[in-house]
Amino acid sequence: MGLAQIDTRVGDLEGNAGLVTTWTAKAAEDGVHLLVFPEMTLTGYPPEDLVLRESFAQASERALVELAGNLAAGGLGHVAVVVGYLAHTEGSGPAPVDRPPADDDRPGDANPRRGAPRNAAALLHGGEVVARYYKRHLPNYGVFDEARYFVPGNELPIVRLHGLDIALTVCEDLWVEGGPCGVAGQAGVDLVCSPNASPYERAKDDLRLPLVRRRALESKAPVLYCNQVGGQDELVFDGDSLVVSADGELLARAPQFVEHLLTVDLAFAAPPATRTEGRIGALLVTRHLVSEEPVEPFEQRSSAVAAPLSECEEVWWALVLGLRDFVDKNDMPSVVFGMSGGIDSALVAALAVDAFGADRVHGVSLPSKWSSEHSLADAEDSAKRLGLHYSVVPIAPMVDAFESSVELSGVAAENLQARVRGTLLMGLSNQHGHLLLATGNKSEVAVGYSTLYGDSAGGFGPIKDVPKTLVWELARWRNAHARDRGEVEPIPQNSIDKPPSAELAPGQQDSDSLPSYEELDAVITDYVDRDLGLAQLLERGHDAEVVARVLRLVDTAEFKRRQSAPGTKISLKAFGRDRRLPITNRWRETLPTVIEGAARD
Amino acid sequence: MGLAQIDTRVGDLEGNAGLVTTWTAKAAEDGVHLLVFPEMTLTGYPPEDLVLRESFAQASERALVELAGNLAAGGLGHVAVVVGYLAHTEGSGPAPVDRPPADDDRPGDANPRRGAPRNAAALLHGGEVVARYYKRHLPNYGVFDEARYFVPGNELPIVRLHGLDIALTVCEDLWVEGGPCGVAGQAGVDLVCSPNASPYERAKDDLRLPLVRRRALESKAPVLYCNQVGGQDELVFDGDSLVVSADGELLARAPQFVEHLLTVDLAFAAPPATRTEGRIGALLVTRHLVSEEPVEPFEQRSSAVAAPLSECEEVWWALVLGLRDFVDKNDMPSVVFGMSGGIDSALVAALAVDAFGADRVHGVSLPSKWSSEHSLADAEDSAKRLGLHYSVVPIAPMVDAFESSVELSGVAAENLQARVRGTLLMGLSNQHGHLLLATGNKSEVAVGYSTLYGDSAGGFGPIKDVPKTLVWELARWRNAHARDRGEVEPIPQNSIDKPPSAELAPGQQDSDSLPSYEELDAVITDYVDRDLGLAQLLERGHDAEVVARVLRLVDTAEFKRRQSAPGTKISLKAFGRDRRLPITNRWRETLPTVIEGAARD
Repeated sequence: MGLAQIDTRVGDLEGNAGLVTTWTAKAAEDGVHLLVFPEMTLTGYPPEDLVLRESFAQASERALVELAGNLAAGGLGHVAVVVGYLAHTEGSGPAPVDRPPADDDRPGDANPRRGAPRNAAALLHGGEVVARYYKRHLPNYGVFDEARYFVPGNELPIVRLHGLDIALTVCEDLWVEGGPCGVAGQAGVDLVCSPNASPYERAKDDLRLPLVRRRALESKAPVLYCNQVGGQDELVFDGDSLVVSADGELLARAPQFVEHLLTVDLAFAAPPATRTEGRIGALLVTRHLVSEEPVEPFEQRSSAVAAPLSECEEVWWALVLGLRDFVDKNDMPSVVFGMSGGIDSALVAALAVDAFGADRVHGVSLPSKWSSEHSLADAEDSAKRLGLHYSVVPIAPMVDAFESSVELSGVAAENLQARVRGTLLMGLSNQHGHLLLATGNKSEVAVGYSTLYGDSAGGFGPIKDVPKTLVWELARWRNAHARDRGEVEPIPQNSIDKPPSAELAPGQQDSDSLPSYEELDAVITDYVDRDLGLAQLLERGHDAEVVARVLRLVDTAEFKRRQSAPGTKISLKAFGRDRRLPITNRWRETLPTVIEGAARD
Repeated sequence: MGLAQIDTRVGDLEGNAGLVTTWTAKAAEDGVHLLVFPEMTLTGYPPEDLVLRESFAQASERALVELAGNLAAGGLGHVAVVVGYLAHTEGSGPAPVDRPPADDDRPGDANPRRGAPRNAAALLHGGEVVARYYKRHLPNYGVFDEARYFVPGNELPIVRLHGLDIALTVCEDLWVEGGPCGVAGQAGVDLVCSPNASPYERAKDDLRLPLVRRRALESKAPVLYCNQVGGQDELVFDGDSLVVSADGELLARAPQFVEHLLTVDLAFAAPPATRTEGRIGALLVTRHLVSEEPVEPFEQRSSAVAAPLSECEEVWWALVLGLRDFVDKNDMPSVVFGMSGGIDSALVAALAVDAFGADRVHGVSLPSKWSSEHSLADAEDSAKRLGLHYSVVPIAPMVDAFESSVELSGVAAENLQARVRGTLLMGLSNQHGHLLLATGNKSEVAVGYSTLYGDSAGGFGPIKDVPKTLVWELARWRNAHARDRGEVEPIPQNSIDKPPSAELAPGQQDSDSLPSYEELDAVITDYVDRDLGLAQLLERGHDAEVVARVLRLVDTAEFKRRQSAPGTKISLKAFGRDRRLPITNRWRETLPTVIEGAARD
C-alpha cells in the first residue's frame, strides 16, 4: 500500500493529474498495489468559489476519466489509485431550491444550479473509474465553507480488490463517530482509505493520531490517512500522513512539510465476520468487484515512522513552505521587503532565504531622520549573514516633499514615513517583478500597530499569524539550529535583544503605546483565538486595564486587517477567512458594563 | 398591525433595544396591537463571528428579557412585539461534535461550544417572552454563512393573541415551499409574522412580492413581511416591507431605503377550519395562549402601498444609504477623495453630498504633469456645483523626489503617481479625521485597472459594485432628477461626455488597454455575476478575443481585490464576501483549450 503526500495546485487539473501519474509510476516501481492521494487531488484544495463554476466542475469530471485512461495507457492500470476530485452530479446544488425558475435576468445563487457539486474520491483501476465516493460530512467552521459548495453524499462504496474489501471516505468523515467508518465497521471491510486536506495549525499533529486510531477501531480495519502538503493562500498543509492498524497501532508516518511516498506492507490475518450491503444508518452500502485473486506472497518490509518535529521547528517549516508555495505558485521570480534592523524583518529575511535561497531575496533599508544608528547596522548585519541583495534608500527627500505640500503632524506624520517606504517598495516591486512581503506580526495586526498602505503593504505576510513573543522564540531557535549545524547564525543577536521600536518619532518604543508583549500576546490568544469575553478574560487572571485596552484596540483595527495581505495560518484562529468580524460593529465589552452586568445578574 | 422597518446597528444591543422601545411607543399611539421588527433586531444583521462569542450571545439573551420588562414598565406591555435576536440555547453549536473534549489548550472551533447559537424571533407581551421561534432554513450561499453560525430550529410556536393564532418564521423560511409556512397552513393559523434581513440587489424587489404571495396562499393566512433598512459594510438593506392577504393580495408596502412604520388593518373573516398541534412534517407545532378576547371593533383604515422606484433611482438611494451608514455607524465626521475631473469621482462627489451634505465632504484635485487642462476645470466645476470643500495639491514635487531616489519606468512610474496621490489623501485623512473614499467602479475592480495603495486606497468604495456603463447611466439620471426639481445639475456634462482616461501617461485613454466598456461590462456580468465558463460566454455571442482578454485580466487581479475596501453590493454578485476565489489559482480558460476540449468531446 502507498500514500502519496503531494503538493497540488488549486485549479491546475492538468498539472495535478500529471503529478498523480508521476507518483503512481514511482509507487508501482516500489511494488505498491493501492495508492492513496489527498482530498480533491485534481482540483487542489480549497478551490473555493471555483466549485460554483460549472465549466470547472465539468472539466474536473473529464480530467478524472482521462486520468484513469492515461494511467492504464502508461502501463499503470494494475495499480488501484484513490484520487480526490470535484464531482458534478445530476441534481441541484446546496442552495435552497424553492427559488424562482432560472431565466436570463436572474441567474446565479438565486436559482438552483443545474448540477450538484460534490467533494469526491474515486478509485481508478484498469483504465476505469471503479467507484466514486461523495464526502458525507462537510466542515463549515473556521476556514472551511463546505456547506456553501457541496451536497453531502449518502452512499458508501466498498471495492473488492485482490480479495480485500476497501472503503473510501474523505477527510471530515473521519472526525465523526458513527459516520462512514462506523458504517464500514458494520458492513465489514478490510481497509479504509481516507484522502485528506487538513490544514496545519500548531499541535494539530497531536490530534490526528488518536483520531485515526478511534476510526480504525470503529471500522475494525486499518486506515490509510493521506494528507496533502503545501501552501495555498492563507493555509499550509503539513502532510503528516499516517497508517494505523485495525487494533489502533501506528504502522507508518510521513514527515511533515515535504512531498513523500509513504509505503506500508499490511498483513490481513482475520477477514471480517460479516460482509453486508444495503442501507446501514444513513448510508447505502454498495459493493464493487475488481478482483478476488490475492496478491502474490511477498516479504513484509518494515515501515518508516517519521520522528516528530520540535514545536519551533514545526512552525518554522510551516512558515517557509507557506511563503515558498505562495510565491512559486503565483510565478513570482523574487521577493523584496524593508529591513529596519528590527526582529520582524530579520526573521522574514531568514525565512525568505530558507524558502528561496539568497539570490531571489532583496532587502532594502529605508532610514529616516528618526532611525537609530543600530537600525542601519543591524539591517546590514542581517543582510550580510544571509547573503541577500541589499540596498539603502534614505526616505528624507520624499518625506520633505510631502511635508512641504501638506501640513501633517503627529500620527499623520508618523504614518507618512511608513507610506513613503511602502510606495518605494511597491515601486521596486513593479519595476523588477519582486513580490513585496509585509513583515508585520500577529500582535501588531491584532492591535492595528501598523500603517495602512505603509508597513502593512505587500502581497503576502509571512509572519502575519506569528505573535511577537513567538517571533523572538523562532529567532532564537533558528540561530540555535544554525549553530547545531555549524552554520552562521542568520539573525543578528542585537535584533533579538534590543527593545522593539517603530522609529517613526524620536526615541519612540513599542512599550510607549502597548502593554508588554507577554501580556499582550496572552490576551490576544484568549480573545482572538479562543473568543473569550471580558468576564472570562478577567477570570483567567489577565490585568483588567490591559484587557480593556487590548479589546478596544483589536475591535477598532478590523478595517485595517480587512485590507491586509494573506499570511500563513499557524494558530488556532488566524486573521483572515478564519475570523470574520464586521468592520461596522458597536459591540464593545468595557469594564463598567461588566461590573454593572455582574450586579444585575 | 404594524411593521417597523428600522435601521439597526450590528453589536449595539442597548441601542437597538432602545429603537424597539421608541418605535413601539410610536406604533402604540397609532393603535397597533401587534408590531413586527426585522430579523435579529437586537444584534443587527449580519453579526458574523460575533455569534461565536459566548459573552455576546448571552448578552443578547439578557437584552431580550430586559426589553420585555422595559416595554411593560413603559406602559407598552399591551402591544405584542415580534423581535429578532441571537439565542443561546442548551446544547452544542453547529460544528461537528465528535471532537476531542474541551481543555485549556484546545479551545475554539475544534471543540463543541457550550451553547448552541440560533437565529431567533420572540414574541413579547405583558412584560414576558411569550414564545421563541428558531429559524429553520439557514442560507449559506452568496453573502450568507448561516450554517457556520446557527443550529436550525425544529419547532413552530403559534401564539393566540386577541383570539387570533399567530405563527412566527424568520426570513429564509419564507423561501422554502413546504417549510414553516406550509406547516402553519396545515396546523391552522390566522397570521404569519416574518422578520427579515434581506439585502438589496438590483430588481430583488420584483422577487419579493410573488414569494410572499406564494407563502400567504400556502399558510392560508396573511403574511407580515418586515425587512430591515440600512447599510452594514458591504450590504445595504432596502426595507420594502410588505403585507399580503391570505388570498395573495398586496395590502400594504413600505418605501425603500428609509425607516418606516407600515400599518395595516386586517379583517379576519373566516377562521381556519382546523387548529392542531404536535408534529407536522419536520416541525413540532406548539400553541401558546396570551388572550382570547378580540380587540374592540374599529373602523378599517386603508393602507399605503409605496410606488416602486425607477431602476436608477433605486440604485442611487441604495448607494447613498450604504455610504451614509458606513460612515455614520463608524463615527467618521467627514469624507475625502481625489477629484480627477472624471466621471467616477464626480459621481462619488454627488453621492457623498447627497449622503452627508456638502459641509462634510472634501474633494482634492491632485494634478500631475500628464493631467489635461479639462481635468482641473471639470473637477473644479463639480466641486462648485456641489458646494463641497475643494483644494488643489499638485503632485510633481513628490513624484520628482521618488524618481530622484529610485529608477522607476513604465507601469512602475504610472503607479507611482497614483500612490503619491493615495499617500497624500491618507495623510489628509489621518490629519483631519476624514474617511478616504476609493472612487473605483466595478469594471476597474474586475480587471484590476487600478493601482494598489494608489487610487484603490480608502476605507470605503461607494461605487465598487457599479459597472462603468451604469456609472454613466446614474450620472445622467441624477442630473435629470435635479432638472426635474429645478436644481443645479450636480455632475458636469463634460465629465459624462469625455472619453475616460487614467491620465498617468501622455495622451493615455482607457480604450488603449481595455475593450469598450459596453463589451467589458457585458462579459463581466456573465463571467463574474453569473459564473459562466468560456464555452457558455462564446455561446452567448461575446467576441472571443475580448472574452479571452477579460478572463485573463479578471483572474489575475484577485490579489488586488483581496486588499480593497468594502463597497455597497447592488449586483447579483459583488466582489467581496459574495465571491470567494483563491488568489493562488491556476484555472484559466483560454481559447485553444476550449477548441481542443470541444474536439475531444
